[in-house]
Amino acid sequence: MIIVMKPNATKENISNVVKKLESRGLRAHLSEGEEVTIVGVIGEKKIIANLEMNMMDGVEKTVRITEKYKMVSRNFHPQNTIIKVGDVEIGGDELVVMAGPCSVESLDQIRETAQAVKNSGAKFLRGGAFKPRTSPYDFQGLGEEGLKILRQAADEFNLKVITEVVDREDIALMEKYTDVIQVGARNMQNFQMLKALGKTNKPVLLKRGLSATISEWLNAAEYIMSGGNENVIFCERGIRTFETFTRNTLDLSAVAAIKELSHLPIIADPSHGTGRWQMVQPMARAAVAAGCDGLIIEVHPHPEFALSDGDQSLTPKNFDRLMKDLKSIAEIMGRKL
Amino acid sequence: MIIVMKPNATKENISNVVKKLESRGLRAHLSEGEEVTIVGVIGEKKIIANLEMNMMDGVEKTVRITEKYKMVSRNFHPQNTIIKVGDVEIGGDELVVMAGPCSVESLDQIRETAQAVKNSGAKFLRGGAFKPRTSPYDFQGLGEEGLKILRQAADEFNLKVITEVVDREDIALMEKYTDVIQVGARNMQNFQMLKALGKTNKPVLLKRGLSATISEWLNAAEYIMSGGNENVIFCERGIRTFETFTRNTLDLSAVAAIKELSHLPIIADPSHGTGRWQMVQPMARAAVAAGCDGLIIEVHPHPEFALSDGDQSLTPKNFDRLMKDLKSIAEIMGRKL
Amino acid sequence: MIIVMKPNATKENISNVVKKLESRGLRAHLSEGEEVTIVGVIGEKKIIANLEMNMMDGVEKTVRITEKYKMVSRNFHPQNTIIKVGDVEIGGDELVVMAGPCSVESLDQIRETAQAVKNSGAKFLRGGAFKPRTSPYDFQGLGEEGLKILRQAADEFNLKVITEVVDREDIALMEKYTDVIQVGARNMQNFQMLKALGKTNKPVLLKRGLSATISEWLNAAEYIMSGGNENVIFCERGIRTFETFTRNTLDLSAVAAIKELSHLPIIADPSHGTGRWQMVQPMARAAVAAGCDGLIIEVHPHPEFALSDGDQSLTPKNFDRLMKDLKSIAEIMGRKL
Amino acid sequence: MIIVMKPNATKENISNVVKKLESRGLRAHLSEGEEVTIVGVIGEKKIIANLEMNMMDGVEKTVRITEKYKMVSRNFHPQNTIIKVGDVEIGGDELVVMAGPCSVESLDQIRETAQAVKNSGAKFLRGGAFKPRTSPYDFQGLGEEGLKILRQAADEFNLKVITEVVDREDIALMEKYTDVIQVGARNMQNFQMLKALGKTNKPVLLKRGLSATISEWLNAAEYIMSGGNENVIFCERGIRTFETFTRNTLDLSAVAAIKELSHLPIIADPSHGTGRWQMVQPMARAAVAAGCDGLIIEVHPHPEFALSDGDQSLTPKNFDRLMKDLKSIAEIMGRKL
Repeated sequence: MIIVMKPNATKENISNVVKKLESRGLRAHLSEGEEVTIVGVIGEKKIIANLEMNMMDGVEKTVRITEKYKMVSRNFHPQNTIIKVGDVEIGGDELVVMAGPCSVESLDQIRETAQAVKNSGAKFLRGGAFKPRTSPYDFQGLGEEGLKILRQAADEFNLKVITEVVDREDIALMEKYTDVIQVGARNMQNFQMLKALGKTNKPVLLKRGLSATISEWLNAAEYIMSGGNENVIFCERGIRTFETFTRNTLDLSAVAAIKELSHLPIIADPSHGTGRWQMVQPMARAAVAAGCDGLIIEVHPHPEFALSDGDQSLTPKNFDRLMKDLKSIAEIMGRKL
Repeated sequence: MIIVMKPNATKENISNVVKKLESRGLRAHLSEGEEVTIVGVIGEKKIIANLEMNMMDGVEKTVRITEKYKMVSRNFHPQNTIIKVGDVEIGGDELVVMAGPCSVESLDQIRETAQAVKNSGAKFLRGGAFKPRTSPYDFQGLGEEGLKILRQAADEFNLKVITEVVDREDIALMEKYTDVIQVGARNMQNFQMLKALGKTNKPVLLKRGLSATISEWLNAAEYIMSGGNENVIFCERGIRTFETFTRNTLDLSAVAAIKELSHLPIIADPSHGTGRWQMVQPMARAAVAAGCDGLIIEVHPHPEFALSDGDQSLTPKNFDRLMKDLKSIAEIMGRKL
Repeated sequence: MIIVMKPNATKENISNVVKKLESRGLRAHLSEGEEVTIVGVIGEKKIIANLEMNMMDGVEKTVRITEKYKMVSRNFHPQNTIIKVGDVEIGGDELVVMAGPCSVESLDQIRETAQAVKNSGAKFLRGGAFKPRTSPYDFQGLGEEGLKILRQAADEFNLKVITEVVDREDIALMEKYTDVIQVGARNMQNFQMLKALGKTNKPVLLKRGLSATISEWLNAAEYIMSGGNENVIFCERGIRTFETFTRNTLDLSAVAAIKELSHLPIIADPSHGTGRWQMVQPMARAAVAAGCDGLIIEVHPHPEFALSDGDQSLTPKNFDRLMKDLKSIAEIMGRKL
Repeated sequence: MIIVMKPNATKENISNVVKKLESRGLRAHLSEGEEVTIVGVIGEKKIIANLEMNMMDGVEKTVRITEKYKMVSRNFHPQNTIIKVGDVEIGGDELVVMAGPCSVESLDQIRETAQAVKNSGAKFLRGGAFKPRTSPYDFQGLGEEGLKILRQAADEFNLKVITEVVDREDIALMEKYTDVIQVGARNMQNFQMLKALGKTNKPVLLKRGLSATISEWLNAAEYIMSGGNENVIFCERGIRTFETFTRNTLDLSAVAAIKELSHLPIIADPSHGTGRWQMVQPMARAAVAAGCDGLIIEVHPHPEFALSDGDQSLTPKNFDRLMKDLKSIAEIMGRKL
């Protein structure tokens, strides 16, 4: 940490800052410039991590030098991490596509979707059995019945299952039925759940919070990794901005940022990221070109009858067209699809 | 719901929209303007609530007419709701102040704080026993031991207790030790927890999510109320914007908005809302003048040694000065303090 | 400036950083921590101000120590600045209220408004003669004719005039008819206009840009002051956030921030800040309690027939009620109204 | 426009709304639902465009049906517009790349850059002669001397010139030296300048404002087109969000949105959009895959000595690598490069 003193800070102000540091077992390294004095803080990292100095008289601002996350950082793990889910690898040569409806509605709906997305080249079947919905009067999902349906349809068509957990208590249930556990945007900082996910042996797909900074997102992943589960996949799904034409603003620069700052894989969700099926194709292409390791896309056999997110779901036909379209961009990026 | 067709929508487009509505048991009310056709949707509210039409050809946009929340709405409950916590009333004549440190650190710290804030006129002792922290390496709170300390100190100085729940599983524990259960910003849309809080008989203080719209916040409260617990208090604690000088942007217009849209009480948190103790006084004054029903303020006997949020904590002396300062504004607003 | 090197930065990386600094006539002050090396940059401020180092290999990030603005800063001018406009003082004991319609529509409208707001205690008549409008098809203002009307009505009722300049070329015209020249949010970073306003002898009211940081706002004022015009008044008028219930989010913490960082006066605009006349009263009260030096409020004799901003305009009757209401809060704040 | 009444609106409220509409020469179309009454407004578009109704008692909200822009809209001009600049076409088969330094610093610098970017395939030379800078103490550009340098170097290497206008008065100067006039983000709503640009015969590149909605951006282009200049090119350059790792958040969904809503071409600026040269390559690739018609990229022969934006500038070598990399994606998108 570096402490920048105000131009008019007194000697006493500076001396008090030094005393406070020393009282915590830290050392101060003073650098007196022409205009202001700067105090470098030296000592035990954990103590510095919890240090606050802005409340002291004469302090203009403090600047943290190092991020708190370690295990997720590329600085400490330069090679890309590849996460294996059975015979599928996320973060490797393959561009992994996960597809399916927002909500599991019935076995027929899921079987029809599973067959279609499998034929088009998807490796994962997605679908929500427990739905986080803005209003208590919205459809809340089929629960465990939905998980069973997902598993059955996925097994029939040789797909992996990814689905969202919305309660820490459901993790055991998730472990039973699913291959990758998804943490939704609204739970990105549900720290008790993240800690619990550190104890599961299933990979975790960690969606970015609606207004989470990249640093907060990396720290959220650090919760899972420091708990013992090293298989974390990031998912950019759009952030909240002032724009209202799209449901969210899909931030593809987050893909490049995560690739720079972390060794973990990252996929993109152009369906939630835009909220408009018409925009899924261009944004899916762009996400691949930005370097993401995969995509998660909403596909519904009959979007106009979907119980949720029909506006952003592709038909199987449009999904198939998209997959063909992505193949050539994936190749340029050195990826198989 | 109103569906606005594109200027160049075909008759077939419109006819397909009408067919879809009829297939759901709804009726269409067409209004052909000079430029565009508008389709009004008539029928069962619950069906309309889950209807999506933007994916259909020829549709320009859809507009929802009614909000989904009911129980929290002033339209359906014009009088202000007053929430009783023992002999303290929130939302009534009194301006209720809740004060205490960010984290419970020790019995001595909490007793010292409790005595001081009681003397200055606070009615509630606040303090975190379970802390939601950005990094897994930050101090995570004392847990149940912290709750015991809070209860003991509050009882000694005749204060009520408010503390944050961070896990659905801890609600029973909360019921044992606390008077009002706080839901933090990061859990505002932890819907499973909101549903569970609908079953408790303790009032709930619902903080606004970091980037939650007012409509989402009202819907979150609707989860609690529709579960059976009608005692919900809103708390504006700052939203996330592009500004970095303050920790968050305290949105006092939310106080006026909630007063217009809902009958439930609302308090403000100028400590988290600004992140700087120097700004707590002006923003507390402004919050009272904006019409809030109370304040929650961080007070620490020794902010420079606080384990968290020292930068935004008042000393007991500064808190006392603030309370004296607020008294005259409270009076003008017709409030006792 | 401080340069934080990556944990794995090589000696060569560091040496190249030092060489670049020296090639610019600057000196490097190395501090090797356990984890990372930090390079302090010493030398000519102007050179450092334009220095960029993030592109160099091994650099993690750079941190600027000092803000670029000087003349606006309270660090260099601790006492409050009071701006005199004839016999009215802004930033002194008095709470100065500016009132009038969004647009000048006719002499009758302006005379009626001027008489009303004067009777209620306003000191300034506001009104737009040149209107910055989102669409080219919206009413664009009466131009010079509008300025004449403003001046005539203000003189008749002994009010000062404030009106917005939207083009650098109109400054001479403004000087002829107005007492304070307003720079609108969309022109806060119209740097050519700011430079030109540095040459006028009229005070300038500088509205905050829709998404301007406080630092950018202070730098915009520095443009005017460094040009030679020291009479700058800030005006918080709401920032753009994700919220849609209000037109903007009135950021009253900006009032406290400006008071801390600058010696210049600041007023608030609750009309544009909320976009809803129903919210003007609570937010005006809150702004005064937050410590602002004045208010600018939209008043229209017949809001339902206003050519612009009718939704956020008070009737003369509601304005009069507001002024009575503000008197008692102003007194508590040590202000006359 | 549609007016949604409150559930408890009285007959008198509704009658007053109807009266106001009729007094403006408009007609009301009432639709009484189970819960609320909805009033459709019928009549002259220009009158409706300036109508405000939220201030009336009993009104819950109003919804605008049609956007105000016409000439920029794809609804009224379904085919893509191709803009010709000499022998270069923007919006056609070719992916047009504009490259050069942030600021024109010297003839040598510009000649060196021009030669390099020409060799790599750029069609335009970019460079700022008039610089909009946050602080008055930052380098403000060489002015007309800079324009001369740009023109000379561009002519020598057979490139077109694009440069930014920061003052309405400079448009004549721009017409003399440049091929496309750029409007920067801070001037996107400098309406007087937009009107003046409607009178020039040079194409205009209109950058998106820092927090401009897509609708506001389209309306800004409408100012230019309705003034008589139909050659407008959009440029997405990143929006302001809460994220601080990147300088801005490059919103590539804006590319897809503009393609859907307008017939005008759009290019992307990954240099300003990210602020980090390391991210220019992935984001440039993504922009092309999202469907943009071109790119504008900062290239400096010696970024570490650039007077501005060195952190986000590519070296000629890195630019050449990028251009080779883009060729294959451009081909897939059906574009020549």
